[in-house]
Amino acid sequence: MLNYRTHLADMPSYDVTEREWRIKINANESNLNLPPVVEDRLMGRLSRVAFNRYPNEEYDALREQIAAANNCAKENILLASGSSEIIEKLFYGFGGINHKILYPEPSFSMYRIYAKAAEADGVPVALNDDYTFNAAKFVAAANDNTVALAVVCNPNNPTGTGIPLADIKYVADNTECALLLDEAYMEFFSADNSALNLLPTHKNLIVARTFSKAYGLAAVRVGYMIADADIVAAIEKTFMPYHLNVLSTVTADIVYQMRDEFAPRISQAIAERKRMAAALSNLNGFTVYPSETNFLLVHYDKAVALNECLTQRGIGIRSFGNAPRLSNCLRISVGQRTENDEVLRVIKEFTEV
Amino acid sequence: MLNYRTHLADMPSYDVTEREWRIKINANESNLNLPPVVEDRLMGRLSRVAFNRYPNEEYDALREQIAAANNCAKENILLASGSSEIIEKLFYGFGGINHKILYPEPSFSMYRIYAKAAEADGVPVALNDDYTFNAAKFVAAANDNTVALAVVCNPNNPTGTGIPLADIKYVADNTECALLLDEAYMEFFSADNSALNLLPTHKNLIVARTFSKAYGLAAVRVGYMIADADIVAAIEKTFMPYHLNVLSTVTADIVYQMRDEFAPRISQAIAERKRMAAALSNLNGFTVYPSETNFLLVHYDKAVALNECLTQRGIGIRSFGNAPRLSNCLRISVGQRTENDEVLRVIKEFTEV
Repeated sequence: MLNYRTHLADMPSYDVTEREWRIKINANESNLNLPPVVEDRLMGRLSRVAFNRYPNEEYDALREQIAAANNCAKENILLASGSSEIIEKLFYGFGGINHKILYPEPSFSMYRIYAKAAEADGVPVALNDDYTFNAAKFVAAANDNTVALAVVCNPNNPTGTGIPLADIKYVADNTECALLLDEAYMEFFSADNSALNLLPTHKNLIVARTFSKAYGLAAVRVGYMIADADIVAAIEKTFMPYHLNVLSTVTADIVYQMRDEFAPRISQAIAERKRMAAALSNLNGFTVYPSETNFLLVHYDKAVALNECLTQRGIGIRSFGNAPRLSNCLRISVGQRTENDEVLRVIKEFTEV
Repeated sequence: MLNYRTHLADMPSYDVTEREWRIKINANESNLNLPPVVEDRLMGRLSRVAFNRYPNEEYDALREQIAAANNCAKENILLASGSSEIIEKLFYGFGGINHKILYPEPSFSMYRIYAKAAEADGVPVALNDDYTFNAAKFVAAANDNTVALAVVCNPNNPTGTGIPLADIKYVADNTECALLLDEAYMEFFSADNSALNLLPTHKNLIVARTFSKAYGLAAVRVGYMIADADIVAAIEKTFMPYHLNVLSTVTADIVYQMRDEFAPRISQAIAERKRMAAALSNLNGFTVYPSETNFLLVHYDKAVALNECLTQRGIGIRSFGNAPRLSNCLRISVGQRTENDEVLRVIKEFTEV
């Protein structure tokens, strides 16, 4: 018998291999590949990579660029393999026996799993019935000196809910633990609501961002956190040397340089989300939750059958099985206009049978 | 005060940023970029990546290819960000309080650090005085039922020593813990000595390989392990979903498909290593240890001054500071023929002053 780490047997296995979807709107990806002008520049850069050399200055170059855009220093920036890895490493760095990690529920399903992997006590704090964030309740739960890290996802996945900056400020003002704002979808909400505005005054605040959603780089796996330099230095120690490969780093670097090219598609995703929300709200039995992201959470009594119908038509959306407080909920990412038209057509047809 | 994980304060920080070397032979990299025929095919493939989609079938495609070449199933293969991440995750998966992890000393310096990160007890087992592997001593140390994982690096870094398969078989036959063979440099030794030959008969054996050295993909960060499907399934649980980005995966895939293109440069590195070893052995005061890798470990009483001299000439080699049993040792990677000539010239000049 092999002698594995004690908790490993309790950890879930997952298979993320996908079937081929005609319309894939199940992972909140951008449904557009790189803008051609960005792709051209990127291919030129990739052809100049020294494949044989370990990563070197590429990592700091991207940090410096992000720092300059956010009025901070590169020592305030940590890059990782998606904001997922930022979250995983923060959970590890603040985790361990008798350390509590707080997160909203329902929210990103990996919080629970990363807490387990970190051998911490994961503590879900329920959102209000309408999935809005209850700042007072969250603060009350966070004011327990065994809470090492509290996480807020803004806007929240999978509910789409945006949290106003005033609520985040209230939490930051009234907690002393490390406070992570997972802002994977913030580009679809508004810069005014980003906790980046609070960083200069709140040393315990950590903001995580990703290139996977608004910047359409899910394949590339790059995310980052911005925080006080002491937090960055501490969490950096949890990463192995050369943890971010050069191909991903230079891709994110060029996309960040050219991020203005993505503004039109972000605006379009927001417009399409509004259009989809209005259309779905008109359907009999549909509840569409307010969303500030590139997806919609809907509640529908026949969600299971509808999901089955969409699957048969080659349309992949996300259902949540037995996840707490998400029964009969479906998450639909915003695709391209013609894709959305087709999705609406199929759903409408289903509801009219 | 933030409440970090207990052992985090004891973890080292490292800065891997490099200066610009005229001749860089300090990291056992290949000193050649991709063969042009491989680069052409790769650039075509990279231009077809769906950057906006999460990794999907690319991971299994590479697993299947490696499995087919090694007469096993994809369920026996786990891919990661370099064999470094394979090692890190194995240490985590077999680590935890009161779990011992055994490794040779001197060997790859990260073993000690990964053991610490895994909150395991790292137990170094001394190599013989001439850095050869003492199988009987290693087995004796491994036969302690708190040893969860034993690691052997073959050929060993930074000593270069090759371990004959008979010694590995003796260890595998006489241990019950998980046994990792770190074969990062095996392509420079011989397939006959690889523990891959023992996998069918030894269920506790794990072989780690990398694309960073012989296949010149250090920038890309891809490595893999081959082991029993149960071990792969258990360790896979320690990785987050989508842990390997698509750009790195398809690069490794094409390099693996075209690995015959790398055979001439591997042969050339071996020939150059032999030439360098012979030339350095002739120098007054130099001990050159037998190497089966793409680098040489040398002992020289004036190693510190020699390293300083090389640094001033823009030649980056590796010295080991206060590392146990490596004082006055230098590790010199094999570069291109003209680079090696220049290195030999500078060293010879230094020794003749």
